[in-house]
Amino acid sequence: MATHAAHAAPDADTRAMRRAIELAARGLGSTSPNPVVGCVITDASGVIVGEGWHERAGGPHAEVHALRAAGEAARGGTAYVTLEPCNHTGRTGPCAQALAGAGITRVVYAVSDPNPQASGGAATLRAAGIDTAAGLLADEAEAGNAAWLTSVRLGRPHVTWKYAATLDGRSAAADGSSRWISSAESRADVHRLRAESDAVLVGGGTLRADDPHLAVRGVEGATQPLRIALDARAELQPAARILDDAGPTLLVVGEDADTRHLTGVELLRLPLHDGRIGVHDLLTRLFRRGVRSLLLEGGPTLAGAFLEGGAVDRVIGYIAPALLGAGPAALADAGIKNISGAQRLDITEAVRIGPDLRITAVPVTAPTATATKEH
Amino acid sequence: MATHAAHAAPDADTRAMRRAIELAARGLGSTSPNPVVGCVITDASGVIVGEGWHERAGGPHAEVHALRAAGEAARGGTAYVTLEPCNHTGRTGPCAQALAGAGITRVVYAVSDPNPQASGGAATLRAAGIDTAAGLLADEAEAGNAAWLTSVRLGRPHVTWKYAATLDGRSAAADGSSRWISSAESRADVHRLRAESDAVLVGGGTLRADDPHLAVRGVEGATQPLRIALDARAELQPAARILDDAGPTLLVVGEDADTRHLTGVELLRLPLHDGRIGVHDLLTRLFRRGVRSLLLEGGPTLAGAFLEGGAVDRVIGYIAPALLGAGPAALADAGIKNISGAQRLDITEAVRIGPDLRITAVPVTAPTATATKEH
Repeated sequence: MATHAAHAAPDADTRAMRRAIELAARGLGSTSPNPVVGCVITDASGVIVGEGWHERAGGPHAEVHALRAAGEAARGGTAYVTLEPCNHTGRTGPCAQALAGAGITRVVYAVSDPNPQASGGAATLRAAGIDTAAGLLADEAEAGNAAWLTSVRLGRPHVTWKYAATLDGRSAAADGSSRWISSAESRADVHRLRAESDAVLVGGGTLRADDPHLAVRGVEGATQPLRIALDARAELQPAARILDDAGPTLLVVGEDADTRHLTGVELLRLPLHDGRIGVHDLLTRLFRRGVRSLLLEGGPTLAGAFLEGGAVDRVIGYIAPALLGAGPAALADAGIKNISGAQRLDITEAVRIGPDLRITAVPVTAPTATATKEH
Repeated sequence: MATHAAHAAPDADTRAMRRAIELAARGLGSTSPNPVVGCVITDASGVIVGEGWHERAGGPHAEVHALRAAGEAARGGTAYVTLEPCNHTGRTGPCAQALAGAGITRVVYAVSDPNPQASGGAATLRAAGIDTAAGLLADEAEAGNAAWLTSVRLGRPHVTWKYAATLDGRSAAADGSSRWISSAESRADVHRLRAESDAVLVGGGTLRADDPHLAVRGVEGATQPLRIALDARAELQPAARILDDAGPTLLVVGEDADTRHLTGVELLRLPLHDGRIGVHDLLTRLFRRGVRSLLLEGGPTLAGAFLEGGAVDRVIGYIAPALLGAGPAALADAGIKNISGAQRLDITEAVRIGPDLRITAVPVTAPTATATKEH
């Protein structure tokens, strides 16, 4: 993909791309069904003269923002982009042509665009005589866009399962009390996770037991995620907190559920299998609706079904330094009978959040695409 | 306790004391019933001329080793000691007099000696005209000697509960299989923990289910800990691995147990309460036997009893990045009914051990002394 190695000082290239990756992250949660993208423009002498990121679907691409900021200073300069510049004329015109038109003479991008509609940007750039290099900080850029890349490759939303538990793995005490297992700092961090997600999902057990709200609070400028609850028999009452006007809500019910008491609620009807909504049915429909990243918040039964279906792409556990010795676990039956059947993961991060520890891990074996699972 | 602040360059003092703390740690697991102690001697110009640590009970104290290494260079110099130099004539003579006799003119120690038999060293030093300061890096030195200090204060061994579990808190799969939850690196780390402990303890369930060996393997120069198993009805068979000659073994049985088939096995008979050996009975007897640090290795029932008894001083969890969704938890009933009754801890360390995460935590509220619990 790369024509040849970047020819500026390697450190300067790396710094500029890392900045572009930081910029890209500002779009998390508000660009779907588009990816997050960041762009940094330097002038001919290597000084940064423009920055931009893709802020929301339908809005200008990162390159356009950065070129506008750079103005004439872009001429003879370099563009650093986290994703291969697009080649198609969508709502905002192809970025490859915009870069050429602005007099950019070199483009460094991190990750190739897997989207067949958008790819080909690099070829267009090269045809215009622009020095083009790919792969700089590709792993970091890919990690920043993991949800979108996964969802495009698999044809279903990228799923993050989030849980809170004590050191001994309990998500509630013997009497069911769970407020609060984790710290105020961890709970604030969950709001940031929600803000970065297109949608947040809870199962029927959690819906009935906790009356969850699921909206984002305390994150400035956040786009509210779609709040989704599974409610096979449509037992939810109209006064439920999830139905308030803090954000959009989608209630997923069995195809024959009686929903006459839920006037004005957006419904998704799906066939039931043994009384339950199928994980892959659900994910396929959510993908079609534009959901690229899904935060699975509970409970243990739903998490077990997702894990059994190979539909957990990332696990984020908030581990509270507490011991209970009794009470339900965060994860229920996932069809695993013995130690050799355990779902193994790699820990990608472990950081303190207040008194708690937040552990992020990804499955060792890549989850499978929805299409593959259902045939 | 300090007469006045140390008067050498603070950095030099801190470096010397940190070195003394490192040296002290080399004695972990082989000095009981004595503490670990490290000592660094600098000459009059501040250059290190002697180092030593207490290697084993009955052997020379750290100060004596360091003074021997320094020889005449100690005259006019400073001694950095992790614990207040002793004042009593035990098997090796009082260190306070040895320091004075060697011409040391300044002593900096980290932690005061809580042992009434040994304390008073600082007063002796000052009476000999030696400039004496206490408290430098006291927290670090105390952490290095936590087991001994706790045991002297509480009159029972310091207890570390060690467990291995998956991210979802399971210590075995649904079928009971648990080899291996954690990685080879974590299992090697447990051998280091054992080597640092005076004794290692398992309950009857683990004894019957796993036929554990409990000896240290793969740690050069390790002192084998006392292997202790609870076996209320003396059901252990003579061929059990724990009875081999890899190290000493103590079998704790009910006072009326028939132990005729266990010829040659060291036994501790204790009264049973509801068929079980009492945690505090056991700890009191082990303390009298010289056990200062105890590693509790399993299983969940025994760990629950220790936690309920306020007899867990440190928790070390090896968290394997795996999910099971079913299977027993690492900790069973500890008498905690609701979230407000949770045993809260502080995480003191979280580090990667191979693919796993090792979390060390200590209870927020200090455990109580054996004597207090039993009255």
